[in-house]
Amino acid sequence: MCTLDSIPLHESERIDDLLTQDLKIIQSDEVFSFSLDAVLLARFCMVPPRGRIADLCTGNGVIPLLLSTRTRAHITGVEIQDRLADMAQRNVQLNDLQERISVIHGDLREAVDELGNGAFDAVTVNPPYLPVPNGEQNGNEHFAAARHEVYCTLDDVVRVSSRLVKSGGRVAMVHRPSRLVEIFAAMRQYRLEPKRVRFVHPRADSEANMVLIEALRDGKPEVRLLPPLIVYKNGTEYTDELVDVYYGKREALAF
Amino acid sequence: MCTLDSIPLHESERIDDLLTQDLKIIQSDEVFSFSLDAVLLARFCMVPPRGRIADLCTGNGVIPLLLSTRTRAHITGVEIQDRLADMAQRNVQLNDLQERISVIHGDLREAVDELGNGAFDAVTVNPPYLPVPNGEQNGNEHFAAARHEVYCTLDDVVRVSSRLVKSGGRVAMVHRPSRLVEIFAAMRQYRLEPKRVRFVHPRADSEANMVLIEALRDGKPEVRLLPPLIVYKNGTEYTDELVDVYYGKREALAF
Repeated sequence: MCTLDSIPLHESERIDDLLTQDLKIIQSDEVFSFSLDAVLLARFCMVPPRGRIADLCTGNGVIPLLLSTRTRAHITGVEIQDRLADMAQRNVQLNDLQERISVIHGDLREAVDELGNGAFDAVTVNPPYLPVPNGEQNGNEHFAAARHEVYCTLDDVVRVSSRLVKSGGRVAMVHRPSRLVEIFAAMRQYRLEPKRVRFVHPRADSEANMVLIEALRDGKPEVRLLPPLIVYKNGTEYTDELVDVYYGKREALAF
Repeated sequence: MCTLDSIPLHESERIDDLLTQDLKIIQSDEVFSFSLDAVLLARFCMVPPRGRIADLCTGNGVIPLLLSTRTRAHITGVEIQDRLADMAQRNVQLNDLQERISVIHGDLREAVDELGNGAFDAVTVNPPYLPVPNGEQNGNEHFAAARHEVYCTLDDVVRVSSRLVKSGGRVAMVHRPSRLVEIFAAMRQYRLEPKRVRFVHPRADSEANMVLIEALRDGKPEVRLLPPLIVYKNGTEYTDELVDVYYGKREALAF
């Protein structure tokens, strides 16, 4: 273990630039690295200027870090895996954001008791996308938990998000389009009405592989289907819009 | 009233080219003219090569006419408004399709009793998009019924479609994206699982104003979000793909 500005760094870890203001982030290919999904969610969601935001399944805290550039609200990240919660906590210190971001190491299914019913103005969540597969799981436990619903199901995530947010507050989620029908059904069940949906397509002529959804607690039915967000304009080059969104250009926020 | 090849034509009516094989269609700006929505639905849906297809809210029969070029299945159009059912019937005669298309003048809410539970391999429907507004309705009763849920609600349309189609059969619908959450909820309620969804955007950077949905009776949950279909490439010129779809180019069918 080495230290950087008195922040301990484990062997597999490195510090990356978050490409947003001066934010840095500790990552580890062995444990967790943030993905485009998290960045897009942090840009897509509408954030209250003040108040409280909860980020569930926060991982290494990438979403709270990115949100801190868009709002003065206090942000609480919840993470069940101890190595990730610890990494998130060090990321908060690394960016000197201790007064604006709290990291809770705990189970989101207990978050309502701990944090309070309706205590938040907004909730963000980038949950595991896949049901737990039948039979043996291969490989790294951290990756398994990030991808598969080991610690929480879609129903858990939606139910807890709905309870944490106040009436009229927003819940923003990124997920796989293949589960859209389930997601809408769960949201309705817990009084979260989808209001803004944006699909992300790798190319203009390919199926969506990601969906961004923002729901309003106790909202009225009527959803807007935003323009498709296309990632690549040819083989490997990002589209202009993706670049604007990725770098957090002001006009591209809450896109 | 004049006649053409012994098909009577009312005063406000005209005969248009359907731009698909040699199909012609009687239309009337006073009563009903088909829209892009109907054409896209007729191209989007997967059709069984034989068997039976029902088209609910068939209007002047545009969807059965277009489907007749893609399948040898027998197609039954159901229309509640007598002027439209009559126009649909004359359209069948005009195209000499009496042996392949039947038009039923009746209420779709009674269609299951009349046509049989699970009697169809596929159902298509381009229903009215808007709830009946509060207060006075202005204008033409035919347009009102085509746009507003005067004769049938979304719940009616989904329930009846689900009952008409056999297990494993497909129901394809075109609707407004703003009602997507409601549509999915109704489909699930009646055991129609959405499997293919395609949004139609007027331009690449505008919100979707139309959605094509195909559901499988008793299907398993998992939906594909197809590439966005963009209508205009600049102010008024259709995109290449829209042209291919519109003219029913083979590769663009069941797109």
